[in-house]
This record gives sequence, structure tokens and C-alpha cells, in this order.
Amino acid sequence: MLIEFGEQSTKKHAVVIGAGFGGLACAKKLRKSDVYSVTLIDRNPYQLFSPLLYQVATASLPEDDIAFPVRTAYREVQFVRGDVKSVDVNTKEITLSTGKTISYDDLILAVGSEGTTFGIPGVAEHCFQMKSVNDAREIRRSLLSTYESVEDGLLPLESLNVVIVGGGPTGVELAGAVSELQREIKREFEHIAPKATVTLVEAGPRLLPSFHPYSSKYTLKTLTKMGVQVKVGAAVVEATSSSLRFKDGAEIVAGTRIWAAGVVAPTHWKFLGETDRGNRIKVNSNLQLSDSIWVVGDAASFPDATGRPLPMVAPVAIQQGKHVARQIRRRESGKTLEAFKYRDKGQMATIGRRKAVVEMNSRLRFQGSLAWLTWLALHLAYLSGGRNRTSIFADWIWNYIVWTPRRTITE
Amino acid sequence: MLIEFGEQSTKKHAVVIGAGFGGLACAKKLRKSDVYSVTLIDRNPYQLFSPLLYQVATASLPEDDIAFPVRTAYREVQFVRGDVKSVDVNTKEITLSTGKTISYDDLILAVGSEGTTFGIPGVAEHCFQMKSVNDAREIRRSLLSTYESVEDGLLPLESLNVVIVGGGPTGVELAGAVSELQREIKREFEHIAPKATVTLVEAGPRLLPSFHPYSSKYTLKTLTKMGVQVKVGAAVVEATSSSLRFKDGAEIVAGTRIWAAGVVAPTHWKFLGETDRGNRIKVNSNLQLSDSIWVVGDAASFPDATGRPLPMVAPVAIQQGKHVARQIRRRESGKTLEAFKYRDKGQMATIGRRKAVVEMNSRLRFQGSLAWLTWLALHLAYLSGGRNRTSIFADWIWNYIVWTPRRTITE
Repeated sequence: MLIEFGEQSTKKHAVVIGAGFGGLACAKKLRKSDVYSVTLIDRNPYQLFSPLLYQVATASLPEDDIAFPVRTAYREVQFVRGDVKSVDVNTKEITLSTGKTISYDDLILAVGSEGTTFGIPGVAEHCFQMKSVNDAREIRRSLLSTYESVEDGLLPLESLNVVIVGGGPTGVELAGAVSELQREIKREFEHIAPKATVTLVEAGPRLLPSFHPYSSKYTLKTLTKMGVQVKVGAAVVEATSSSLRFKDGAEIVAGTRIWAAGVVAPTHWKFLGETDRGNRIKVNSNLQLSDSIWVVGDAASFPDATGRPLPMVAPVAIQQGKHVARQIRRRESGKTLEAFKYRDKGQMATIGRRKAVVEMNSRLRFQGSLAWLTWLALHLAYLSGGRNRTSIFADWIWNYIVWTPRRTITE
Repeated sequence: MLIEFGEQSTKKHAVVIGAGFGGLACAKKLRKSDVYSVTLIDRNPYQLFSPLLYQVATASLPEDDIAFPVRTAYREVQFVRGDVKSVDVNTKEITLSTGKTISYDDLILAVGSEGTTFGIPGVAEHCFQMKSVNDAREIRRSLLSTYESVEDGLLPLESLNVVIVGGGPTGVELAGAVSELQREIKREFEHIAPKATVTLVEAGPRLLPSFHPYSSKYTLKTLTKMGVQVKVGAAVVEATSSSLRFKDGAEIVAGTRIWAAGVVAPTHWKFLGETDRGNRIKVNSNLQLSDSIWVVGDAASFPDATGRPLPMVAPVAIQQGKHVARQIRRRESGKTLEAFKYRDKGQMATIGRRKAVVEMNSRLRFQGSLAWLTWLALHLAYLSGGRNRTSIFADWIWNYIVWTPRRTITE
């Protein structure tokens, strides 16, 4: 049963599917409307701060820190936990997998994206993805427990090796963090740990393909200096239970294999309209599919000035979420809709302790300590809850100043 | 394979089983010995700070905060993760369940205790225990996810009820914390949450039986005022999948049933010597079973002045662990062994926000805010790692001052 609330009879109803960056930004901006009541649906009762997922996977942060409880966040937003099974655009009704139905006047699709294996054999079975808290938890368990298994003679030494596929920001950040974790663990498993390796694999010609070549070069040099083996132009053709195989016949044996090489929108929503190669729904200049359906974030295919769809990153989702809320309110006041314009504030990736790359625009780029501090500050600023912000800040003080990584395995 | 370390040929070898309060205190004090090398064995690579387990169970603290990684703690102590299968006291050899064997010159048993159901039907199947991180995680999941299931109509309203069996400090602390969690959740599930109840059940005539009757009375009054239903003199005869049944025919229907009513030492070690009713091994005045085997903490049955075994609490374990380390070092310097004497520094239990009872000795007792601050300060002081201490301190500031409980369900 959906909790009925008094206003529903008089107010219009906006339903947001997905409590990620885009969905929350939209719900937050719409919640004080006198005309609309807002319902937010997600299968999890928290917003996952996925840019820091790699720190949970490498045991730097506890998982609670990057999961922001949405129920408590905005009192005016009705939260419903559930999976959406179908949408009837004629009756304007959503059906959840539990059978519960919810009517909407406006529907905002903010359903995000998921990892894709590109159909490469063995990847789904033998590689970790890194999209959810559960994924990060499994990676962390694999990274840490392998040392004990090897020490006990239950696994061969090569199991300590880690291979990460995908040279985008996620792969780069993960490779740097794994390398730092491996270095720290040397003190605890003195006899076996020095043998552990980490390899970062990219199919294209350079790391961070969406960045300026100079940033790619700096990243390659920095990772290499940290001991990460970087393999570019290397296409994976198969994953097995103990290795990755490449097109050129090479093979990397590794106990922990992480797939961070590609993200697509969920196919589930294709029935709503035309989609691009990444399953992203093509929207008009107002981010609309129809008068009453809006799409924001990773799930929306919206072209930039050159005609390529905008990247699947948090700033795009947040700006789009806010834009849709603004348009819904404009329409109610009888104003015309405005086209969405993305203000590109640049991009950044952290490589390791005191090392990052930042690109503010085509001219302003910087690397190293200053870039890393910028990265820290911006990530803290983007975190939703004061509590999570404090907690992560305290953890980072320990990680980066006191230098005691949190490294408990509690399962 | 056990990692060999150079000193082993020349040094004697002390093996500590169990990384709880007693085992760690002993290992820590013995680790700088020139005569002994120290190995610590535990099935988990962390010390569990069990006095705060109830805060993990009620979503106030993340589980990482109360799990202190032992590998990194003391460099001189060799840590082995494993389950001890058997001990051969003649050859002085321990066998782990993996088959690995470890020889010792001195063995320190610090194996702690576990929950007991007293053989009451249904308790093992239908009640949560609260001894491990996993137990706390399951309680948290049950407490939080029940609200969603009830809202979705998948569970009846009575599922929101919580019943806790055991009126000792654990039961009292848990009941208070559950009551505060239920009050906080009212804001999120306005229509169903006000129906939730929490009942604390004690078989004896009063709560906190080991405390002064005045403290029991204060605790009963305070819990009642907080909305906890307290049932004393109530013997559980059966647990079902939805309720607890009592000797007088009464029944309490509750979705979350927690058993905090009794703790015994593991039966696994009974083969070593004479045990008391709680499976605790009877030791001599030096805490010895034999020249080379020592027992500390919950696993040891050591009489107080009145002949009753000392309580199973952290201060006893810590003092005994240190005592054994001291005796081993005395013996090496040719000194005679000293009998163990427990210095009772009192006991305390927290009831809720700004409410606790503290008994320093038979004369000095206090309650309320001052007692609560004493409780906070002492628990922070007893935490092993600076990192955990900082992290819990930050969380408590949020919980008690900013009043935003951490309440993420990430699974």
C-alpha cells in the first residue's frame, strides 16, 4: 500500500525514478513546490556516492560513509523503496515489482547506468564489477582475504595479483588505490606481499581518453612510478577463473579481476523511446521524451555541441535534474520551456596520495598536489550529508596524514 | 605454511588463542620480551569491541568502527588467522582446522564466551544473538527493513515490535537504543512507525541483577519513561518465528527477537581440565591450568572473595591478560609467581541519551548525565586504535549533539 498523503488530492504528482545524482537533484528542487508533491523511487534507500566507491573497495572508507540515507534527507519527498516493473504512458501509471501502482502527472527517469561486459566471454562470471556497495564489498574481501589464503598455502602466489580493465577515471583511481593498499600490506605479510602486482589495462591507445593527452601522459608516468603495470592498446578477449586473455595471445594471471571498462544505460527502459548505442534514451532539447516524461543523467542521450552524447558523469546528471525541476515549475507558471545547456566545469581524476589531474577547461589544466587537494575539496563539497562529509573528512585525515588505512575485514 | 621468523630458533614461543580483551592485553605486554616471541591466533583478523556492538546493531555506528585490525596493531606479534582444532598438551602443539600446526612453550587461552539458549525450544532458530559483527548486522537489517516490508504490506504491523531477552547491561543498552531508533524512525514512516513497541524481558526479579538495587530501580524507571515495556520475573519457554511464549502463558508477538540472556564459555575447551557450570575452566591462583597453560578472561573460572567466579567482563579479562604476561616474564627472571587479584573498578551501563548508571564501588554510585559522560569517556579510552577512537568520537558528536543517527542499510 502506498501511504496516502493529504495533498495528493489537490496537488499534481511528480514521480522520480532513481535516487542518484540526477534524481535527487530534481526531487530536492521540486520538493517545495506548491503545485507538485514529489515521490522518489529507488531499489535502495540511499544515494550511493559512486565517485568514492573505489575507496570502499580498497578499504579506505567504510561503506556507510558513501551511502546517504534518502528517507531522512528531504521531509517533503515521499520515498518508496522498490523496483519499477513497468510504466503505462497512457494511464500514467507505474507498476512496481511488488504489484503496487503509483500514478504520476510527470515522470522523471533518472535510472543511471550499469556495467557492461560487451559480451566478452567469462567477464560476467570471473570479473568483479564496481557499480554497487555490494560490488565494492566483494572486491575488498577478495583483495584482503587473498593474502591469508596465500599465506595458508590455499592459493598460489599469483592470486595476489590484481588486474583492472578500463583506463577511465574509475580504473585509474582504483589502480592507484590498489597499489597503495598493496604497499601498506607488505608490512603485514612480509614474505608474500612483495610479490603482488597490479595491472591496469586499457583497450584504447591511452589512459583517461576523455582528458587532454598531457593528463594521460602524466597519469601513465605517475602510475608507473607507483609500481602499476599499465597496458594500453590491449583488448581482452576472455576472462577465466584465474586470468585475463588478450587478443595478442598474452595472458595475465590474477586472483582479483575488476571490470571497469564500460557503462551503459539499463535496457529495461528501451520500450519508452529511441535509444543510442549505450541504451541511452534520446530526448529533446528540454530533456523530454513527451510532455510528461523527462529523462536525466546517464539514462539520457543528450548531444553536446559536437553532436556526441554528454558523458555519463555526476555534474551532467545534477545539472539535468535541476533543469527538469525548473522546467516543471516554469510550465506551471505558464512560462515556455528552456532548452538544457550543459555548463562543463571540467573533469578530474585522482591517481594516488597527493597526485591527481584536473582539467577546468581547454586551457586550465594542472596536476600533482594542488590537483589532488582540489579533488578532495570538490568531493567533500559534493557529498550530500553533513554527517557523511564529517566522517569522510576524518577518515581522510587518517588516511592521508596519519597514514593508517582502515583495513578491517568483518566478514 | 607458518611464516618462520628468525628469532624462533633462539626464543621461547608464547601462543595466545583469542584476540579479545584478555588475549590482546597479554600479547601486547609480552611482545617486547627478549625471551619470548608471541603468536596470536584468532578466527577473525580484528579485535571486536563488543561493549559497543549494540550501537552497530541499532545503526548508530558503522561496523568498521568497533573492529580493530590486530595485524597492524603490534608489529612484534605474529598473527595467524584460524580456528584451533586441537591442542596436544604432551607435545605442546596446536593444530588448526586447516591442518597447520604450531608449537608452543606457553599457551594462553583467551577464547572468550558465546551466547547460550539454555536449551529453550526455538531460541536458536528464531532469535538473534548479539556476539559477533554478523549478529549485529543481522539485527540492524531486521530492525530497519521491517519498516519497509510492513509499509509494502508484506508483513503485519506487529512485526515492528522488538523483544529483547536478558536484563543485564547488554539487554538494557540494546532496549534503550532500540527505543531511540524507533522514535527517530517515526518521522520516516509516519503512518506505521508509532505502532512499534520494544519489550525488555528478564527472568529474575530485577534489571541489572549484578548492580545495586537502586541502580536497577533507576534503570527500570528510565526505560519505562522512554517507552520500553519491561517485564521482570518472566521466563521464556519457547520462541517461534513470530513471538516469544512465557511460562505464565503470555505471548509477545515481535518481528525482531533478540536473545541477550546468558553467556557461557565454548564447550570446545572442556577437554583441557575441570570446568564450572558455565563451561569456564577452573584455574589456580596464578590463572594456570598447568605449568605451561594459562587461561584468562571469560574462559577462566576464577573465584572472587566470596567464592563466586569473577564476572565475564572486559576489565577482568584485561587484568588477567596483563597478569599472565607479567608472570611469564617473572618466571623467566627466576622470580616466584604471584596470585592474581582482581581490582574491581566498578560497573556501568548506559540506558540512553544522557542516561546511564555507574557504580564505582559499594559507596560511590551515580546516575543520569554525569554517569553517561563517564560511560562515554571510559569507552573511548578503552578503544584500541586512535583511528577507531576518532571515528567513534565523531559519530557520537553527530548522534548525541547533532542528533542525526546513521541509518543506512547497504544490503
